[in-house]
Amino acid sequence: MLIVKKFGGTSVGDPDRIRNVARRCVEEYKKGNDVVVVLSAMGDTTDDLLELASKISSKPSKRELDMLMSTGEQVSVSLCAMAIMEMGYPAISLNAFQVAMHTTKVYGNARLRKIDRDRILTELDNKKIVLVTGFQGVNKYDDVTTLGRGGSDTTAVALAAALHADACEIYTDVDGVYTCDPRVVPNAKKLDEITYDEMLDLASLGAQVLHNRSVGMAKKYGVELVVRSSLTDAPGTVVKEDLTVEKRLVSGVAIDKSPARISLIGLKDVPGTAFNVFNVLGKKNIVVDIILQSIGRDGTKDISFTVDSKDLDEALKTLEEAKGKIGFEAITHEDNVAKVSIVGAGMMTDSGVASRMFEAIYNAGINIKMISTSEIRITVLVDEDEADRAARAVHDAFNAED
Amino acid sequence: MLIVKKFGGTSVGDPDRIRNVARRCVEEYKKGNDVVVVLSAMGDTTDDLLELASKISSKPSKRELDMLMSTGEQVSVSLCAMAIMEMGYPAISLNAFQVAMHTTKVYGNARLRKIDRDRILTELDNKKIVLVTGFQGVNKYDDVTTLGRGGSDTTAVALAAALHADACEIYTDVDGVYTCDPRVVPNAKKLDEITYDEMLDLASLGAQVLHNRSVGMAKKYGVELVVRSSLTDAPGTVVKEDLTVEKRLVSGVAIDKSPARISLIGLKDVPGTAFNVFNVLGKKNIVVDIILQSIGRDGTKDISFTVDSKDLDEALKTLEEAKGKIGFEAITHEDNVAKVSIVGAGMMTDSGVASRMFEAIYNAGINIKMISTSEIRITVLVDEDEADRAARAVHDAFNAED
Repeated sequence: MLIVKKFGGTSVGDPDRIRNVARRCVEEYKKGNDVVVVLSAMGDTTDDLLELASKISSKPSKRELDMLMSTGEQVSVSLCAMAIMEMGYPAISLNAFQVAMHTTKVYGNARLRKIDRDRILTELDNKKIVLVTGFQGVNKYDDVTTLGRGGSDTTAVALAAALHADACEIYTDVDGVYTCDPRVVPNAKKLDEITYDEMLDLASLGAQVLHNRSVGMAKKYGVELVVRSSLTDAPGTVVKEDLTVEKRLVSGVAIDKSPARISLIGLKDVPGTAFNVFNVLGKKNIVVDIILQSIGRDGTKDISFTVDSKDLDEALKTLEEAKGKIGFEAITHEDNVAKVSIVGAGMMTDSGVASRMFEAIYNAGINIKMISTSEIRITVLVDEDEADRAARAVHDAFNAED
Repeated sequence: MLIVKKFGGTSVGDPDRIRNVARRCVEEYKKGNDVVVVLSAMGDTTDDLLELASKISSKPSKRELDMLMSTGEQVSVSLCAMAIMEMGYPAISLNAFQVAMHTTKVYGNARLRKIDRDRILTELDNKKIVLVTGFQGVNKYDDVTTLGRGGSDTTAVALAAALHADACEIYTDVDGVYTCDPRVVPNAKKLDEITYDEMLDLASLGAQVLHNRSVGMAKKYGVELVVRSSLTDAPGTVVKEDLTVEKRLVSGVAIDKSPARISLIGLKDVPGTAFNVFNVLGKKNIVVDIILQSIGRDGTKDISFTVDSKDLDEALKTLEEAKGKIGFEAITHEDNVAKVSIVGAGMMTDSGVASRMFEAIYNAGINIKMISTSEIRITVLVDEDEADRAARAVHDAFNAED
């Protein structure tokens, strides 16, 4: 069997933890398996390098930032290879140049295009445990790129796909995917299985266990993922296309406190208004999430939507500047809002889920500001202060049947 | 003009110093010159990485150690590129893969074989200041190698040769090459010029300004070097084939406190004895320096030689083990010895230099234990405690005429 294992920054945070990772890799190797390991940078390395860069430049070149950041993973893989060899087993570390990890040209947020398998397969044939730098690649200019947030997960999934691996294990500091954040909902339960689509909705809603891009790639190439703890031997959560058991109505409750709401009041009720609004924001790379448009009345309408809090100031400025072009009477906004979502692959065949969610929130005395739904997800916008309580109420409402 | 500049670890030790390096590069660029900059790792980075490795492995793999160490220079070049861009000038950093800095396969002490000029020339054509990672290369297995001590100097000289640079400036924390270590001889003077051969002898004798391999390469390819301070605008010392002024009798006095002496007493006075001795030491990679063999008498002879203090224990052990094979009566050794040397290209045509040196040491009441000479160098072995005083005495004796 060929197993790809990925360990994040906290799992390789110090020499002891690196030894722990080495030990887990050796255990797998001793079973007779081929082992490919993807590592992130040690603990705070990425933050330390970013801070160093910020002392040099207020707005560092993205190309140079990638060149700088990519050193972090190279430190991790070489140290882990040493640790494995210290235990008496053969290992070799490889960086993005050596693996020929081809990406698109965009610095800071590149996408993997193609991975040369030759070097890795040669080293596996030589019976070595192969350690690969996560998060990074090389673009067509032969420049270093990085893959953006959660990039090492993406590296692992891409390697598992390219090498036709039998398993892709994502090790983290939690022991799997939970029905809700256990810090908010103490009786949250670990899921044994979850579908790609559920995981995608949970990840994009702030569950922060796996990054969306890696889950999307896993779904595309049919790579079955296992999310598990680097510190325990608990079996973790399997992420796959279809559940082996009957689909759950609701798999998880997600909380996301990052959004801010903007409303444009008194827009002309003519075609093209919405296009104008989101076009000016798109040009500034501001991502708009939940969108709500009122029914036109007296020739005017209102549009509300959410943006990430960090983009709020620029969004307001951009809209004010385009006021003449868009044509509206007023802007309102609020920053202290949060999204609470339920996700479940079984939801699409059960019409009662939404009403049960709204009922639970109503019973908790919490006001719903906006609603957005997809086939397997229902999201409501509430006051940020009430988000945790809303999540608990919703979790309790659906928990009985699991 | 194309100028290669090399800055060492202390010159890029913190953000302020990196800005200082950036400023110097920009000044050169503003004169209309093409600028290629070679950097070492920041300050203590190399030591920090070595310490990290030592916590993982008692004897880390050399391949993985090179993979680890090479990250240090990549951090320096990317940060310095950011600093130059922050000042409003174009810059780009390149690592050993991007430059295609081909080396021999030996990890930890590789030698440069060939440098592809294409990428650097392209970036210079694009009017960029090009920053290149010193100290590292890539071998035929596509693995990272490092060039050993003083490796960044070698990178700079090799680049200057490959690019047919008009100047190669080695920036350091002293403002040039001195007639002696100013901490030992307060009236030591900075030299305006020195020949490659003098510099080679000074470097190998512990002057520690330029590493021997880089000077040897500069001599081979006729690259004129300038050693100068990164903190002042003093002109520094030019290292070249021939001096423009008349050759000095003595260019400098060097002190080296690293050696230890070993004597083998009562060797058989037959052919092959010396070969046996240095063959067993050579097999353990123990470098032998000054060798003195007594005239044979009563069928036996003695051999004395120096080794680096750090190799003393292993040398003694190796010789004891080979006692039967070599055949000797006793071993003596002393660790507290030092070499004091005078170096000067004019020496080879003046027979009185040696006697003046010995006279100065005699007048200072210091005993000479061993003597070794080359065409442009005379070295004596003295007690370590007396080395500084011997150097001052010799320096004074030759200083009058300079």
